[in-house]
Amino acid sequence: MKKKIVIALGGNALGDNLKEQEDAARVTSKAIVDLIEQGHQVVIVHGNGPQVGMINLAFETASKHQPKLEFLPLYTCGAMSQAYIGFDLQKALRDELISRKLSNPVATVITQVLVNENDEAFHNPTKPIGSFYSEEESRDMEKLGMIMMEDAGRGYRRVVPSPQPVDIIEKEIIKSMMNSAQVCIAVGGGGIPVVSDGNRLSAVNAVIDKDFAGAKLAEIIEADMLIILTAVEKVAINFGKPDQKWLDNISLADAQSLIAEGHFAKGSMLPKVEAAVKFASSKKGRKALITLLEKAKDGIEGKTGTVIENL
Amino acid sequence: MKKKIVIALGGNALGDNLKEQEDAARVTSKAIVDLIEQGHQVVIVHGNGPQVGMINLAFETASKHQPKLEFLPLYTCGAMSQAYIGFDLQKALRDELISRKLSNPVATVITQVLVNENDEAFHNPTKPIGSFYSEEESRDMEKLGMIMMEDAGRGYRRVVPSPQPVDIIEKEIIKSMMNSAQVCIAVGGGGIPVVSDGNRLSAVNAVIDKDFAGAKLAEIIEADMLIILTAVEKVAINFGKPDQKWLDNISLADAQSLIAEGHFAKGSMLPKVEAAVKFASSKKGRKALITLLEKAKDGIEGKTGTVIENL
Repeated sequence: MKKKIVIALGGNALGDNLKEQEDAARVTSKAIVDLIEQGHQVVIVHGNGPQVGMINLAFETASKHQPKLEFLPLYTCGAMSQAYIGFDLQKALRDELISRKLSNPVATVITQVLVNENDEAFHNPTKPIGSFYSEEESRDMEKLGMIMMEDAGRGYRRVVPSPQPVDIIEKEIIKSMMNSAQVCIAVGGGGIPVVSDGNRLSAVNAVIDKDFAGAKLAEIIEADMLIILTAVEKVAINFGKPDQKWLDNISLADAQSLIAEGHFAKGSMLPKVEAAVKFASSKKGRKALITLLEKAKDGIEGKTGTVIENL
Repeated sequence: MKKKIVIALGGNALGDNLKEQEDAARVTSKAIVDLIEQGHQVVIVHGNGPQVGMINLAFETASKHQPKLEFLPLYTCGAMSQAYIGFDLQKALRDELISRKLSNPVATVITQVLVNENDEAFHNPTKPIGSFYSEEESRDMEKLGMIMMEDAGRGYRRVVPSPQPVDIIEKEIIKSMMNSAQVCIAVGGGGIPVVSDGNRLSAVNAVIDKDFAGAKLAEIIEADMLIILTAVEKVAINFGKPDQKWLDNISLADAQSLIAEGHFAKGSMLPKVEAAVKFASSKKGRKALITLLEKAKDGIEGKTGTVIENL
């Protein structure tokens, strides 16, 4: 059964520098091309935590030492991270496809994601980004309109809002690519966050969770399946405790109860399970899979991973 | 007559900082949407000279002061410049389309351009990039494998090869977007230069002329027309001299003779006329137009600009 699949990759799995990223892109590409080889049509969404941090730090550092350079806004750094990562992924995917005599074209699409300017996250920025600062530096940054927060005695860090994705601006293009079996890398880093002011879009300094953005994309482009790749083969309850229990197929209702009972760690497994539930609950028949990169193929075949399905 | 058009924009026309770029993107978008409004299907190619220089300088400066940061290769800076510029263009184009009640989707596609590793440019790097260095710094950079050249008494600069574009790796996707009246921004900065090693692509530190890359793209995706936007309404012979003469419609043969006679300035109008000739000569009926941004619409209608046509 050929499926339309949105795959969400973690930014941390892509390494900490260019060489690591190139290597990680090759490994990732093999697992993704396994799915394409079986006839599935895929869209790849990826995180950008370390990468956007690196780009942000570079412009922050450079603008202090070189007056000609601007300290670019976070959303511009985010746009650039989509190309920084997407380029390596599209090159590695093409190499892997061609080595298996597959001719699906591949490309990265720079993607904006609409958020609601009234999202409560804008009143409560919680996502730390960039480097640590002294109290004095932190005050200077507050004067520039940035929101700073003391971070567990390690200094001050800038925090930004993490609003919910509402729409994917480039959805039509991503959808036509998926439906033509072109391999699309999109919504990198959760997308460049924009708010709508009438007919005009304005970028905002925020970070959208890439699993939520992937779930929203999968819903809008009518994918059959959302695969959230992570560091474990299955989701567990009582994780790391003597009564730990791996979850296989779970119903939507069970997943919602487990979330309500607080079984999943905030900022770790919780948003993944929540994103899986959001996608699966968007339409009957939709299925979300949470597993390891190298188990994605087996997971689609129902052999492993945690599956949340809207039966 | 609805046409398939590749439009090549200069990187210099996009401003020197983010604010200037946003403003320039809005002005540019109005002129491009004029063409879309008439039913033409457009692909936009742009330069990235100032922008890739800025990104390159930022990573160069930052990596000297922050040991965690790498001095990224030029091709990675080039990839990032495609998103830095493409994001502003796609946002401004969408705003302008929607304000005119047009619903064409818009997106930037990260694009690699194949060059020949035996291109003679690799033996003769001539394109200066980045900042000026002292003789001593220049020697250190040579030890890192970079080629440095003394620049008219102003210090030393890194030079890179400027090879000819051979193929556009993401051509199928760009072509399907054009044919579906989706507005595609592609081949930014002339594309990320790659060489092919069997089935594998490797990025190289080089700069491809954006007008040549635009002409190659237009040829491959079977556009009807290539528009090269520049700072003058028409091409002239004896430019700036008493016997200066503006050129209107010229035949391919005449254009080739004028090139051979040395009428056009190297690094300025020459590559534009050469790119126009390359595209027009690729197939009967193909037409290249060189003009100002704000005259593009009139130029398509035959009212102004210099047209080189393969009759």
